[in-house]
Amino acid sequence: MTKSLKSFIYFATVIISLTACSHKHPETEQPPQNNMCEKLTLQADGIVRLSKIQVNPEHLDEYMKYAMEVGTVSLETEPGVLTMYAVADKDNPCNITILETYASQVAYKKHIASEHFRMYKQATLHMVDSLLLTDVIPLNPDNILTNTIKK
Amino acid sequence: MTKSLKSFIYFATVIISLTACSHKHPETEQPPQNNMCEKLTLQADGIVRLSKIQVNPEHLDEYMKYAMEVGTVSLETEPGVLTMYAVADKDNPCNITILETYASQVAYKKHIASEHFRMYKQATLHMVDSLLLTDVIPLNPDNILTNTIKK
Repeated sequence: MTKSLKSFIYFATVIISLTACSHKHPETEQPPQNNMCEKLTLQADGIVRLSKIQVNPEHLDEYMKYAMEVGTVSLETEPGVLTMYAVADKDNPCNITILETYASQVAYKKHIASEHFRMYKQATLHMVDSLLLTDVIPLNPDNILTNTIKK
Repeated sequence: MTKSLKSFIYFATVIISLTACSHKHPETEQPPQNNMCEKLTLQADGIVRLSKIQVNPEHLDEYMKYAMEVGTVSLETEPGVLTMYAVADKDNPCNITILETYASQVAYKKHIASEHFRMYKQATLHMVDSLLLTDVIPLNPDNILTNTIKK
């Protein structure tokens, strides 16, 4: 190997290293903050829904655990579950509302056939006094919600 | 300039260009998709609210425009407005629900004092048959919604 070739390889290596450093992606600088799977986009046959659940007061604490668990697993593992955001009325925590978004009809069918959803449904059936599903349409299709579970 | 130095400069330039290309950030490949301001985080005194609005059917189209406009401006310009996601019941589009999240009491006060909110309120007062504000508590504080306006 000639001296000039050695010198070229050395400097080229240094330059590549420096350039690579200065272009380091933010993702690699900050480790991922969640375990979310890659998500699908909302299709024309997608579903946006407000599920209103009246929980029996005797079972509220237990119900909350199941609802949190199914929400977390669905969001983290199902590409077609775009939102699953559950809130309880401040004045009456037995009134639960869940904003659910499914990318498509297929995504919704996959969700209700999943092991975690079926387990939640089975386990909480006797805790729920009433369930009202209201399908809705976003006023502004450019208004986008992204739902994640923080670790 | 010696031949080997010329050769080094040429190859170094090629390598820098190639490395720079392969490390191009996704952000620079795709220009920003929205005009969103930097957001505050949800504080202990923050507000999560479901606003239920019954719109007079005669004014529905007009109301929709005002609601979309105030939602867009609030999200794009107010650091303390974290969500403003409006949906209409599929079976009765006069039933509007807005999921509103304000980072703090101060952020909420700033919002209702803003020019765009006051204009919306004034302009739509006669279009609204009823308004019910229900403050809620997210079941899972680690379940995070991020709301943006796509351009």
